[in-house]
Amino acid sequence: MKDIKQKTLDLHKKNIGKLDLIPNVELNTKDDLSLAYTPGVAIPCMEIVKDPSKAYEYTAKGKTVAIVTDGTAVLGLGDIGPLAALPVMEGKSALLYKFSGIQAVPICLDTKNPDEIVKTVKYISPIYSGIMLEDIKAPECVYIENKLQEALDIPVFHDDQHGTAIVCGAALKNSLRLLNRKIENQKIVVCGTGAAGNAIIKTLDKMGAQNIYATNKKGVVSKVTIDREDPVVKDLLNKDIIKSPDQSVTSLKDVLIGADVFIGVSAKNIVTQEMVESMNKDSIVFAMANPDPEIHPDKALAGGAKIVGTGRSDFPNQINNVLVFPGLMKGVIEARAQSVTYDIKLAALEAIASLVTDEELSVEHILPSIFDERVAKTVCEAVIKAKK
Amino acid sequence: MKDIKQKTLDLHKKNIGKLDLIPNVELNTKDDLSLAYTPGVAIPCMEIVKDPSKAYEYTAKGKTVAIVTDGTAVLGLGDIGPLAALPVMEGKSALLYKFSGIQAVPICLDTKNPDEIVKTVKYISPIYSGIMLEDIKAPECVYIENKLQEALDIPVFHDDQHGTAIVCGAALKNSLRLLNRKIENQKIVVCGTGAAGNAIIKTLDKMGAQNIYATNKKGVVSKVTIDREDPVVKDLLNKDIIKSPDQSVTSLKDVLIGADVFIGVSAKNIVTQEMVESMNKDSIVFAMANPDPEIHPDKALAGGAKIVGTGRSDFPNQINNVLVFPGLMKGVIEARAQSVTYDIKLAALEAIASLVTDEELSVEHILPSIFDERVAKTVCEAVIKAKK
Repeated sequence: MKDIKQKTLDLHKKNIGKLDLIPNVELNTKDDLSLAYTPGVAIPCMEIVKDPSKAYEYTAKGKTVAIVTDGTAVLGLGDIGPLAALPVMEGKSALLYKFSGIQAVPICLDTKNPDEIVKTVKYISPIYSGIMLEDIKAPECVYIENKLQEALDIPVFHDDQHGTAIVCGAALKNSLRLLNRKIENQKIVVCGTGAAGNAIIKTLDKMGAQNIYATNKKGVVSKVTIDREDPVVKDLLNKDIIKSPDQSVTSLKDVLIGADVFIGVSAKNIVTQEMVESMNKDSIVFAMANPDPEIHPDKALAGGAKIVGTGRSDFPNQINNVLVFPGLMKGVIEARAQSVTYDIKLAALEAIASLVTDEELSVEHILPSIFDERVAKTVCEAVIKAKK
Repeated sequence: MKDIKQKTLDLHKKNIGKLDLIPNVELNTKDDLSLAYTPGVAIPCMEIVKDPSKAYEYTAKGKTVAIVTDGTAVLGLGDIGPLAALPVMEGKSALLYKFSGIQAVPICLDTKNPDEIVKTVKYISPIYSGIMLEDIKAPECVYIENKLQEALDIPVFHDDQHGTAIVCGAALKNSLRLLNRKIENQKIVVCGTGAAGNAIIKTLDKMGAQNIYATNKKGVVSKVTIDREDPVVKDLLNKDIIKSPDQSVTSLKDVLIGADVFIGVSAKNIVTQEMVESMNKDSIVFAMANPDPEIHPDKALAGGAKIVGTGRSDFPNQINNVLVFPGLMKGVIEARAQSVTYDIKLAALEAIASLVTDEELSVEHILPSIFDERVAKTVCEAVIKAKK
């Protein structure tokens, strides 16, 4: 552990962070300078004045998004503030570039006021082709995303919500495909009604799920508890997308009895082997809490689960957003989409699922590898097609 | 001209803008990801929570500034807005990197409200080691710089003001050195009381100048005209840093009679050969309006000027900010200066001037070349020393 700590600090120190912002033009002669800077630079400036869309050709706007955080919900670390969040933003930016060639400029904001965040991002937005929101706590993140998307004509994407929902949906789609079951018939329990949980529920609904239950720290969510829930959960309950069980069913343990699918985006070790045993035969367990899952995969399998996925790379079936956001962001930029619609999200989901062939599909292989180079390309193409 | 236009557009199009934001870490294996991203990344995050100054080691903060504009005073193009200003910001960022290795993230703001600009820059500031303001119109730029520097503990530097003033001061210092004259005895006329002109006047005062006159579009500035001047000019008049000539002296033409030094940061062709002829013998003429100077160097020389400088690279004595900002920004970052004091500015000025030896110094060589690699290094070292 000491070794890993030193290794990661050394890595971050070696080049002072993980990103370099460097010129891609020659600046060795007066002629170079007169093209890249004055007087030549006035020409692309005036082309953009005449036609703002030219900025996609003549400036980094055509390949650059902002990755915005207020540092309130960073990894599992919580509210560590904008500066301490920077290593995560740099890492996410590096991943985005690695898998798609899209560049992400970290924007770490020293305010937690949702309206100030919205206003600030509007002010800085002209030079970006998209906005990624990152590690902003719920429910503010939903409000911020909605307000920003209303205000801007570039796509706004909160990966913690939709990236998680899309990859989880792809994992479920392939699991049901392997087990030859239909989503309409599944009793699904989503544990966690934060940003990720609520987005997963919306996506499951769009996929055709009919029996979704949700739980959070206070127990099962229902029309009985509706007054204490956040606005998003309230809305999902009112629309009957989240079902309300019998009043006797109040705990996660209660509601898991007879469930087919467990999806956890909550906290470590809150599911026991006995709880999995109470689920239907050949259950599907996605224990995605990071870094430690809701139940260790071995225990879930011992409890009778047929397919188990986690967020971790050291177990089979890693359910990781990196399968989603690089291709999706590249796709919405190339298609000049003005928002990330559910058509786009579901197209990304289908594209990811489609990359595992019937021959490859197994209980330990429901998703492509995050290093599979086809993923971002395929997602990107699917997004562009969905936009048309 | 057609050729230059196409060349510069091709250059801007080739790599989509002039900047690349790319990872400097390997991301090829699960181990790579576990160091650069989760779970390893939590370690530098928590180190920064414990000690925010660690961000200078573990994140790009240690080598990165923001370059902020609202697009209101871009080159000679005027108020072209934040998006069309981006090619200039990318160019400036490229120059900063080329000459100092410091990286500048363009921040182009869709608001012209000075207080909103100040607030926005405060919000985005935690991850930068300095703020460069760029191409913001006067007098707002002065207000914004002052308010920001009050609020932040990182250096705030408006190059259009201070970069211009420092390089102009260095040019004047070496001119007087060559001509064996003392600044105290010089009658200096500064033409233009915008951001650059006012900063030049303040710098000349710090250098010991005793007879500074100023003019703007409405003529000579004086205690008679004080009510119509902007707050900075008012202050300079009240402090007697800008002298008030006799009431009969109202035009640039009037005040140039008997002057030793003309410094123009105004508009093209407003100085005639006759006006230079009316100056004292062996006058110094810095006609720095861009791209076309206040008077063509040939005419100034024909009028009796001994030393002529312009902003252009195609005449001798190019007086260009690029001699200043790379070394100065690198210096204030390395020294962890919290602001750019006049001690720092004057140290940069002296450092630039010192790079021309007595042997090299001539009427056509008063400043080092912008491609002289010693410049940024020498300025940086002088700044660090001045900070101590």
